[in-house]
Amino acid sequence: MSEPLFHRVTVIGLGLIGSSLMQAVRRHDLVTEIIGCDSSEAVREMVETMGIADRVEADPARAVQGADLIVLATPVGAFGAVARQMGSTIAAGAIVTDVGSVKQLVATAVGPHLPEGAHLVPSHPVAGTEHSGPEAGFPELFQNRWCILTPAAGVDAKAVARLSELWRRVGSDVELMEPTHHDKVLAITSHLPHLIAYTIVATAADLEGQLTAEAREEADRVTTAEVIKYSAGGFRDFTRIAASDPVMWRDVFLHNKEAVLEMLGRFTEDLTALQRAIRWGEGDTLHELFTRTRTLRRGVLDARQAGSFAATEPSASESPAESAAAPVPKSPDAAR
Amino acid sequence: MSEPLFHRVTVIGLGLIGSSLMQAVRRHDLVTEIIGCDSSEAVREMVETMGIADRVEADPARAVQGADLIVLATPVGAFGAVARQMGSTIAAGAIVTDVGSVKQLVATAVGPHLPEGAHLVPSHPVAGTEHSGPEAGFPELFQNRWCILTPAAGVDAKAVARLSELWRRVGSDVELMEPTHHDKVLAITSHLPHLIAYTIVATAADLEGQLTAEAREEADRVTTAEVIKYSAGGFRDFTRIAASDPVMWRDVFLHNKEAVLEMLGRFTEDLTALQRAIRWGEGDTLHELFTRTRTLRRGVLDARQAGSFAATEPSASESPAESAAAPVPKSPDAAR
Repeated sequence: MSEPLFHRVTVIGLGLIGSSLMQAVRRHDLVTEIIGCDSSEAVREMVETMGIADRVEADPARAVQGADLIVLATPVGAFGAVARQMGSTIAAGAIVTDVGSVKQLVATAVGPHLPEGAHLVPSHPVAGTEHSGPEAGFPELFQNRWCILTPAAGVDAKAVARLSELWRRVGSDVELMEPTHHDKVLAITSHLPHLIAYTIVATAADLEGQLTAEAREEADRVTTAEVIKYSAGGFRDFTRIAASDPVMWRDVFLHNKEAVLEMLGRFTEDLTALQRAIRWGEGDTLHELFTRTRTLRRGVLDARQAGSFAATEPSASESPAESAAAPVPKSPDAAR
Repeated sequence: MSEPLFHRVTVIGLGLIGSSLMQAVRRHDLVTEIIGCDSSEAVREMVETMGIADRVEADPARAVQGADLIVLATPVGAFGAVARQMGSTIAAGAIVTDVGSVKQLVATAVGPHLPEGAHLVPSHPVAGTEHSGPEAGFPELFQNRWCILTPAAGVDAKAVARLSELWRRVGSDVELMEPTHHDKVLAITSHLPHLIAYTIVATAADLEGQLTAEAREEADRVTTAEVIKYSAGGFRDFTRIAASDPVMWRDVFLHNKEAVLEMLGRFTEDLTALQRAIRWGEGDTLHELFTRTRTLRRGVLDARQAGSFAATEPSASESPAESAAAPVPKSPDAAR
């Protein structure tokens, strides 16, 4: 129907996001040819079986030849190495982007390896699920999600517009942001929540470990079976995001260290204050804090209802009856 | 159809849980007469408008007269005062229960005020939503939820069996547990998750506060609008449970202090270890922790799929296509 936006797109790193992007651009006829590239033979075979790429390569240098759009979809820790391998074979005029959850890193790790005339336009589709691998991908992943672009000053405006159009055509709302600001915003809205979720799941898992060690001394330990059984009390909300890909998240925390440590410091201060209030029985302090955060909570719940995001549970202003009639989202909440 | 289990049930505290229980026992014909009691005139009027009680009282002493089942559904901090008011008018042979999220408290706060021959059988339906008030109640709330009973040793077995039957008839799976153990299990599966969720929402909300204060010095602050906009990155999962009733949760933390502080201490240690690993760039430590918690996460995700709980998002082993066909739960995750 519509003229393809790109002649040949090469996606490097064929996990959940890379696989979903290949399926989305194919479904919307946005590209003529799709080349996939992954260092894992198992992943390459899976992608070939799925038939979602026209060609699958192991070597980034070969994969990017003749591509006018190159998308880095590996864990961010691999960006530098991949850029070094493919840099020399990138065609002049090609747009190079990524889907990483940290953005300051991209300019420094990828930029230096790109040839004259290549346009670096970093992207972060705020979308995902707790599942990993190409088989977890699906073409609707980017629908009604934000995609944040962080091009450096002076980058070709036409390249930015062309890439923005691709993200819009797969269903995303595009925003431009400074990389430093992006990394701060995502540190609180995504990175810290994941760190906390991973931590509480680990804390709960260790309770059982101590059961085996100290069973004789104390019979009253909380077991993992009990944690699982009664997780509907709130714990369960943390387990899904803590199921996200470990390598991806290791790299995110290593490469957004400053912003994550700042937000973590603020969180720990606030948690310590609450801990003290509990220890000293200061009910007013607890009640005040539990109350004053309502504006933000309502905003988030309403934003979901407004359809900016796919809601995964009935939103705040829905009655149970209404929510029972609400559509089921195509994917869980974004997991990055 | 079936013979009513109780002649007259009095529910004291007509919020989400009290209202839902009145609607559930009515729907399943488990009682002949339903008396509601609440100290708030606005709540009493709402309940009368909803027509979910045969009679609504302001005074617990009047409300419990002639009742063979009495359910305390106020915030747990009010249990002692209510028990003192109603104690003398409770009929011999009556079963007294509650729906509180902490259980050690019940024996000490309620027990001493009960007359000879009354049977105290504390209950904790592990069910709820982030909504509050009688209008938020619905009869399906307890379906496929656990209900934990914590009767003291020596309590009449027939009374325990009769109350268990009521919870089963409204759709719950009943478990017996020691009150001390209950309070430990719920501290990690429910109380700590809520405390953490409230905290991170407060931390995020304060970022904006500093924007107004220091806008001149620094223009790069993260705004509340941005937190809301990009909350799909993980933050959103925390906001719903942080929308739960502030008074209820204040009382839970004040009355399960010991277990909550113990779990909070363990969590803080684990979080500090991760913080150090991030600061020192110890990727292996991060990756190891993000990986070893998988058993517990899978268990929780599978337990949901098994239908022990109403799932609010596609479970781990569902493909997006399958999940799109999954039924929408009648209520969000239990919020207590």
